Amino acid sequence: MPLLVTGGRILRPDHTVERADVRIDTDGYIDAIGDLEQTERDQPLDAEGSLVTPGLVNGHGHAAMTLLRGYADDKPLDAWLQEDIWPTEAELGPEDIAAGARLAAVEMIRSGTTAFADMYFHVPELVDVIDETGLRARVGHGVVTVGKDEEAAAADVDEALDIAAEYDGAADGRVRTAVMPHAPHTVDTESLERLVAGADERDVPLHFHFNETESYLDPDGTGERPGAYADRLGLLDDSSWAAHGVHLTGDEIDRLADTGTAVVHCPASNMKLASGLAPVERLREAGVTVALGTDGAASNNDLDMFDEMRDAAMVGKLAADDASAVPASAVVEMATRAGADALGLPGGRIAEGEPADLAVVDLSGAHLTPEHDLVSHLAYAARGSDVRHTVCDGEVLLRDGELLTLDPAAVKREADERAREAVERAS
Amino acid sequence: MPLLVTGGRILRPDHTVERADVRIDTDGYIDAIGDLEQTERDQPLDAEGSLVTPGLVNGHGHAAMTLLRGYADDKPLDAWLQEDIWPTEAELGPEDIAAGARLAAVEMIRSGTTAFADMYFHVPELVDVIDETGLRARVGHGVVTVGKDEEAAAADVDEALDIAAEYDGAADGRVRTAVMPHAPHTVDTESLERLVAGADERDVPLHFHFNETESYLDPDGTGERPGAYADRLGLLDDSSWAAHGVHLTGDEIDRLADTGTAVVHCPASNMKLASGLAPVERLREAGVTVALGTDGAASNNDLDMFDEMRDAAMVGKLAADDASAVPASAVVEMATRAGADALGLPGGRIAEGEPADLAVVDLSGAHLTPEHDLVSHLAYAARGSDVRHTVCDGEVLLRDGELLTLDPAAVKREADERAREAVERAS
Repeated sequence: MPLLVTGGRILRPDHTVERADVRIDTDGYIDAIGDLEQTERDQPLDAEGSLVTPGLVNGHGHAAMTLLRGYADDKPLDAWLQEDIWPTEAELGPEDIAAGARLAAVEMIRSGTTAFADMYFHVPELVDVIDETGLRARVGHGVVTVGKDEEAAAADVDEALDIAAEYDGAADGRVRTAVMPHAPHTVDTESLERLVAGADERDVPLHFHFNETESYLDPDGTGERPGAYADRLGLLDDSSWAAHGVHLTGDEIDRLADTGTAVVHCPASNMKLASGLAPVERLREAGVTVALGTDGAASNNDLDMFDEMRDAAMVGKLAADDASAVPASAVVEMATRAGADALGLPGGRIAEGEPADLAVVDLSGAHLTPEHDLVSHLAYAARGSDVRHTVCDGEVLLRDGELLTLDPAAVKREADERAREAVERAS
Repeated sequence: MPLLVTGGRILRPDHTVERADVRIDTDGYIDAIGDLEQTERDQPLDAEGSLVTPGLVNGHGHAAMTLLRGYADDKPLDAWLQEDIWPTEAELGPEDIAAGARLAAVEMIRSGTTAFADMYFHVPELVDVIDETGLRARVGHGVVTVGKDEEAAAADVDEALDIAAEYDGAADGRVRTAVMPHAPHTVDTESLERLVAGADERDVPLHFHFNETESYLDPDGTGERPGAYADRLGLLDDSSWAAHGVHLTGDEIDRLADTGTAVVHCPASNMKLASGLAPVERLREAGVTVALGTDGAASNNDLDMFDEMRDAAMVGKLAADDASAVPASAVVEMATRAGADALGLPGGRIAEGEPADLAVVDLSGAHLTPEHDLVSHLAYAARGSDVRHTVCDGEVLLRDGELLTLDPAAVKREADERAREAVERAS
């Protein structure tokens, strides 16, 4: 049945807000916007008193890290990784990854996220979760070769390339893949070259961490900056997207702009790990597509893209030393169409012919009163719990706060148990 | 009837969490904690699956500025104040202030805040709102003398002192007052001297903005730092609390510590107005009591103290360039007992003999799973919408998300209308 989103106001791609209904065809595309009459065939979705926005796009993360939410906070990055995160991750099996990803899916769907990028391991299990939950994603196996011998490194590269080929187009096309070297400094040059060539052969994009902390800034030990190094190896490309981009020279910003490489800003993670202030305003001025990501829940500690919009607008002003920098409309764009564009996924726009990836935000909260400016409210005052309905690819995943593709109590119970067991095994 | 909070876990002042019921006597004090049997006289309040925390304390704000939420974002501070905020504030009459304060009360009660500080104007109307809504507050008339002639300045000082005397102890003692010069650089020296003497005579504390932006740093035009100047005039005192404290020298931090002056950190406002990074870790190390405040909703844009805890922990790490700075337990303390101590109000602790100012936080959300660390969840992952019940002075103000002292639909309608009209009058 076609879906008819009725009685709401919609956020147009130019950030104007208008009163309009939205009809979604049975293939999952928006086929009409306006004052529409409900027919017998339409399945209605009430948006009275609500704002219909594009589904939010989480451009960088590690979904199953929800299992480590709150496990080891407030530690310096190196100690955090070496003492807590890596030993526990080493204990996570395929079923743990599925449980963590389901927990992430509950949280994402509840807070209006319809598409996400994921770099982790046990990707086939993640793909199954995406299939069953109805979300859209760009996924890949994260390759790290430091500390591995040649054989193990080659196997990791092989796995990443095999997965990129095998799962592209899974879940009725909602799953797309990418080749994902963890970062220029954690993957050796030869492996990076194989990954770049492999991505090109398979016609999938590249995704990697980029200049997140100062430890990233001399990737091959020659003193060459990561921007020049990554550019030389072919990592920078108009299909690539880089996470973080905190410590960037002017030359690196220019290279990102010139090659068309998108950047996913992760403000909460950058603050929580004291990584630094990303130059978001300068990146946007240079013409770089800047999206938003939560990173893993262990460094955030939630997957709520409303928090991320607020954080980006807030900390972007500090970084630019200018209260007019990174305004509300910029972060709304970053969380919607810039996210879709960065990941090379459809969506991010409410317009005829676009796929129906939508979030319907209840405007009745005291914290969203008065109604001077709804774009400001999205950026600064709304939160994930204001989302009433979430629609992805034309399917309703959340209706009036109720999850239709997951049993949240069962998901939480399993995640809690598996998280506790993994931590026990690691300690 | 005594109130019995049953089946929950409670957050103790030392940040341990234990399974315990809480009995509240008819005078509004906690009289027993433990495994308590429900008697016929007890009115039960279900806390199963929830964490009982001290009510949150919002240490600095301007409640009625909710009317300006989202009205003029993303502008440099001076233009924002001069072109948007001040002209609109000039149009706000006593009934507007009441409407804005009621809107703030809805938001605060819903998000677990039980006590707040307020510096604004038309204070008698604010006191009435506090009386009817059941909150606790420390209030004062904000004095600004720059741009005023001698007579107008004297009248402003008189008003502040009269209000401090008249309303202290109002609303059954839930309203306490303070004398509130806006800031050392916006009140002339003579008026500051009268305010300090007047506060001393009336035995009420002083509250003022302090070193929020660089424009604060030469208050009387002689080059003397605000810390030395304020100390010399008697503004710094163990009953005083200062808002912001962003731009502080080592000498100023020492003076705050030596005099016992508390600081209310306002991280969201400091980010949104690009004011800078407050040295929270250094203040705490120096022994200064640091509390948290939202500031007005126009520079935040919400009054959710969970956001403020998260922001403080996040941005405190950036300010200290250290991921272990301003940990979860620190921001929970800042939002609870340090807030009560800064404002000289009772509360902030769940312990026998303390007044029953409580928030009961639902732990069932996916974003609060798994349960590795509930203090971490309070600081980083919980949000105002997780609050089920709010209790102030032993009275239930919010029960299962329902407001018992306010009609939120009527409050929102009136605030929306009055906000629109004020903006129209100003433009």
